[in-house]
Amino acid sequence: MSSCCLTQKELLEIYGKDACQCPSPNKNMSLVFSQTKPFDLIELEQLLQSVGWSQRPMSKVRIALENSLLKVGLWRHDPAFPRLIGFARCTGDGVLEATIWDVAINPIYQGVGLGKLLMNYVNQSLRDIGVTRITLFADPGVVAFYLSQGWVLEPKGNRCAFWYAN
Amino acid sequence: MSSCCLTQKELLEIYGKDACQCPSPNKNMSLVFSQTKPFDLIELEQLLQSVGWSQRPMSKVRIALENSLLKVGLWRHDPAFPRLIGFARCTGDGVLEATIWDVAINPIYQGVGLGKLLMNYVNQSLRDIGVTRITLFADPGVVAFYLSQGWVLEPKGNRCAFWYAN
Repeated sequence: MSSCCLTQKELLEIYGKDACQCPSPNKNMSLVFSQTKPFDLIELEQLLQSVGWSQRPMSKVRIALENSLLKVGLWRHDPAFPRLIGFARCTGDGVLEATIWDVAINPIYQGVGLGKLLMNYVNQSLRDIGVTRITLFADPGVVAFYLSQGWVLEPKGNRCAFWYAN
Repeated sequence: MSSCCLTQKELLEIYGKDACQCPSPNKNMSLVFSQTKPFDLIELEQLLQSVGWSQRPMSKVRIALENSLLKVGLWRHDPAFPRLIGFARCTGDGVLEATIWDVAINPIYQGVGLGKLLMNYVNQSLRDIGVTRITLFADPGVVAFYLSQGWVLEPKGNRCAFWYAN
């Protein structure tokens, strides 16, 4: 069996009991969503920086992950060295509000629909725990991406507002 | 002593150890911020509906409050029957991101600067725990209010996006 193929045993042992396979655009590549497989923080920050997010202190990222309502890794399967190729996390109260942050697909793996699959997975996971309204702040370059997936921009004329501590 | 006046002993006993007085526009009225005094959920929902927020299931509101990063009550002091006249809560990870929800000042008490004092208190409380970026979704009618307080709308052309579960 090729090392890219993934058995049910490997899926659960390597990626955690909640893990599930993500449809792959390439038959030589197995992809997995996991909410529990721990992240290497350096690998995670490299992924986020590869899509343009600015660097944050590692100690703060660690706490932010611990305090997130949901954190999802999209892994390219390799039995010895699974690679983190996508990520998203949510903050929120778990019932009324959830906000998505830090969405990233490694640029090498972009353009084949993985961003959409990741967002579908995140939305479904939030729906599964009972959240009915999900929010995010979209950069101008990805507004069309979210619109095409059924997201609504600024309903009723709402506006985003940001406040930065000195 | 008039019943509206508030002793330090009353402040801590009625409103909790974290409580602090809020400058009052009226010398016959003492106002208090508290992050720990429990809310009567019916009183809270009445306050939120008085400013136009839609009704939510009480059971969900209870969980949402428990899972909030911060929840602030603005109370009009009365030794026997403190009244909730303002409210705001935040979700977030406590270090990188905080989002403010459910901001309300009872319409009877609006127009005298209490909204600004409430937001200052919330921002300072979040800054005290180390959050450096705060976000919110502002209705069109209150955009000017937030702008006047130093909030920035859609920096770098960001857009809000909402997704509603079926």
